[in-house]
Amino acid sequence: MATTHIASVPLEKAYRLINHGPTTLISSRYGETENVMAASWACGLDYVPAKVTVVIDSHTKTRELVEKSGLFVMQVPTVALLNTTRTLGNISMNDIPDKLNIAGVELFEMPGIDVPFVEDCIAWLACKVIPEPHNQEAYDLFIGEVVGAWADTRVFNNGHWLFDTADPELRSIHYISGGQFYAIGEGMEAYK
Amino acid sequence: MATTHIASVPLEKAYRLINHGPTTLISSRYGETENVMAASWACGLDYVPAKVTVVIDSHTKTRELVEKSGLFVMQVPTVALLNTTRTLGNISMNDIPDKLNIAGVELFEMPGIDVPFVEDCIAWLACKVIPEPHNQEAYDLFIGEVVGAWADTRVFNNGHWLFDTADPELRSIHYISGGQFYAIGEGMEAYK
Repeated sequence: MATTHIASVPLEKAYRLINHGPTTLISSRYGETENVMAASWACGLDYVPAKVTVVIDSHTKTRELVEKSGLFVMQVPTVALLNTTRTLGNISMNDIPDKLNIAGVELFEMPGIDVPFVEDCIAWLACKVIPEPHNQEAYDLFIGEVVGAWADTRVFNNGHWLFDTADPELRSIHYISGGQFYAIGEGMEAYK
Repeated sequence: MATTHIASVPLEKAYRLINHGPTTLISSRYGETENVMAASWACGLDYVPAKVTVVIDSHTKTRELVEKSGLFVMQVPTVALLNTTRTLGNISMNDIPDKLNIAGVELFEMPGIDVPFVEDCIAWLACKVIPEPHNQEAYDLFIGEVVGAWADTRVFNNGHWLFDTADPELRSIHYISGGQFYAIGEGMEAYK
C-alpha cells in the first residue's frame, strides 16, 4: 500500500507534483457518497497560497460532490494504475453506481481532512474549492486552494521527482485520447 | 525549419496537442513588439469550441501584449529547444529587451493570423482571448478559444502523437522547477 511511503510536501512546493502535466484523479465525498474521476485538464495556478485548476464536467457525479462539499483531492496515478485510470475516466457513477469497485480503486483517509484519498498514487493535493460560480457554470472550471500535499517518497523526495531511478511502475501517466497514454520519460537538466 | 512539416489539425482534435501536459511557449505581438514566454500552467478547457487556459504573470511583457492584442499562440517545444525554453521562462523582456535573440528563438508567420509562431515546435494552437477580467486580475488566468491548430507531421499525424517512433529530439518537455525537465516517455495503451 502506498500509504506506507507517504510524506508531506511543503505547500509552496506542491505545484511541483503536477507541473509536468500528469493525468490526475479527482476524489470527493458528500455524505455517504464518494467517487473518483480521471481529469487530464488539471493544472497549477499559483505558488503561495498554492492553487490549482481542474475541469469537472457537469454530467459527472464528482461535480455534484465537489460542489456540495467544497473539497477534493487531486492525485497523480501511475503506470500501475493505467487501466484503473482509464475506467475512472470512461464511466460515470451516475450510470454505474458500482464504479469504484469495477475500477478496482481503494481509498484511504488522512487525519483531519474529510475527503477520500486514492491508494497507490504518487502525489496527493487536498484542495478546498474557491467558489467562482461564473467559471464553474460557464466553463466547468474549478479553482482549488491546496490545503495539504503529500507524495510517495520512493519517487518524490526533497522537492524533486525521481522518475529516472524509481520503479518504472511508479511513473506518472499522461493521457491523449481513446485509451492512449504516455508515461513520463527521461529527466533532462537545462543550464542552471 | 519546422515549417516544412506543418499540417493543420482539426479544431475538435486540438486538445490532443496539449492533453499530455507539455510545457508550452506563449507568443504574442502588439504593434512592433513581439515576445515569447514559457508557460507550464497551460491546459485544455473544452473540446468544441476548443478552448485552453494559461497563466500569464502580470510582471511579464507577454501579459501586456496579450491583453492589448487579444491573441496568442500556445506552442509545444521539444528536447531540441530545452535551453531555449529555459531562457524564455527565466528572463523577461521587461528586463532584457534582446530576450528573443539571447534565447535563440526564430519566429514565422501563418497567413491570415497576426501573431508570431515559434519555429521548431511540434504543435501550435492559435488562440483568441475570451475576455474574463476577473480571472485575469485575480488569478493571472487567461482563457483562449483555439482558432487554428497545426502540428509537425513527423511526430503528430492523423490525430495521434508518434513519440515512440519519431526522432527523440522531437519529444515534448515537461518542466518541474530549477531547470529540471522530463521528456515525454513510452506510449501505453489502456484497454479500449
